[in-house]
Amino acid sequence: MSNTELAGLADFACTLADAARAVTLPAARLVQEIENKAAGGAFDPVTAADRAAEKSIRALIAAHHPDHGVDGEEFGSTPGAGRFTWSLDPIDGTRAFICGLPGWTTLIALLEEASPVIGLIDAPIVGERYLGDSAGSRLIGSGGTFALRVSGCRSLAEARLATTDPYLFDGADAGAFDRLRRAARVTRYGFDAYAYARLAAGGIDLVAETGLKPHDYHALVPVIRGAGGVVGNWRGDDDLSGGDVLAAATRDLFEAAVVTLARR
Amino acid sequence: MSNTELAGLADFACTLADAARAVTLPAARLVQEIENKAAGGAFDPVTAADRAAEKSIRALIAAHHPDHGVDGEEFGSTPGAGRFTWSLDPIDGTRAFICGLPGWTTLIALLEEASPVIGLIDAPIVGERYLGDSAGSRLIGSGGTFALRVSGCRSLAEARLATTDPYLFDGADAGAFDRLRRAARVTRYGFDAYAYARLAAGGIDLVAETGLKPHDYHALVPVIRGAGGVVGNWRGDDDLSGGDVLAAATRDLFEAAVVTLARR
Repeated sequence: MSNTELAGLADFACTLADAARAVTLPAARLVQEIENKAAGGAFDPVTAADRAAEKSIRALIAAHHPDHGVDGEEFGSTPGAGRFTWSLDPIDGTRAFICGLPGWTTLIALLEEASPVIGLIDAPIVGERYLGDSAGSRLIGSGGTFALRVSGCRSLAEARLATTDPYLFDGADAGAFDRLRRAARVTRYGFDAYAYARLAAGGIDLVAETGLKPHDYHALVPVIRGAGGVVGNWRGDDDLSGGDVLAAATRDLFEAAVVTLARR
Repeated sequence: MSNTELAGLADFACTLADAARAVTLPAARLVQEIENKAAGGAFDPVTAADRAAEKSIRALIAAHHPDHGVDGEEFGSTPGAGRFTWSLDPIDGTRAFICGLPGWTTLIALLEEASPVIGLIDAPIVGERYLGDSAGSRLIGSGGTFALRVSGCRSLAEARLATTDPYLFDGADAGAFDRLRRAARVTRYGFDAYAYARLAAGGIDLVAETGLKPHDYHALVPVIRGAGGVVGNWRGDDDLSGGDVLAAATRDLFEAAVVTLARR
């Protein structure tokens, strides 16, 4: 892909994120009102906003890039005619969304032959957009655009660790994460994809999670790598399809975490 | 206290929060830079910003209300000549602060004869200020000022529960919290005082924590009660001095949580 083509598609990813924001931000307020009036009902974090935002993104892709495929969390896969496919999660962190907390994001990735080449993590409540590609990663906010750079943290004892929910780990994974947590300097919870965005910005040094779907991790990869970080699975290689994701500010920290997770 | 006096002191609390923001917001960026350059060193979440913000607040109180006492997290207690004392925690959530996460807050409470009559929870990163007193609670943000109202949630099975860190509980408290977590609809972590602010706004229904100091809980009480919520300790009464705090959107939910926490 040429630099011009890449820049054009990165701008288009921002257009998609703008369209999603126009749906999700008013919905975040509305969901609070609905929640506060509801007398009960089954717990369904997949809101109408999630579906409306994905529809809005899909309509833009169909209009501007009809040859591109789309694979969305809500409406599944629509194969394209060429080598590009968009991978979408309109609202990642639906639990944060229903609680009115700022950590939910919109995830948009462009895959070229199944490999993510552009990643976008949009955090509407805090007004931050994290965009990564082969030209690097940047934070686009109300104050301007800034290059993103991971921290230089190389040891677990100094690492600021994050994961979404310590109770999401099963069996051996729970034990492995507990070892990591005890070895790290500090652990924060509750941020879903936003934790990876903060890793790219240098605020978090290490993130470990399991059970991620492709829509959850595709967008993270270019953002983290474009900021100089390392992302792979818990065994230390690049295949994320098992859903176990480990992201670190440095290669040394990544490898230290792999060793600690694997220890018996 | 007259309504006029109360309104004047609530405005003054906002002036104090503005002064703290002027210190903490630039420091939040600076701390990230320092963290990212640091090669190591002991973990000390009490930053220079914490101290500078408290100094700034204390100077304003001394200038405008020299008869008021001050009890701050950083510089201790300075008794006043009258019935009013300010209770301050310039940066609550220092772990979030050092990780560049949006959940840290500035807590400011005015006590009248040891009872909190004005509470202010300021969340600078998200630009939200939660203010509560006998006139009610309101959210002061960039979009204007809005009355705060808790949700109507009355049952644990429907409740959105929050706590800062599930690993902060010791012994029997850990078991009690685990029962609560399993009974609740969804649990979110990592927000310190911001969770109580979101409870006042109706986004969270229930918060349970232990180990809180007076500076941590004084400001919460008027904000929660002013929004129609209930706050007390884990045994269901009003004494918070043991540091165990339970806040709920409704009395029914509060009592259901007390029963679940106490079960053996």
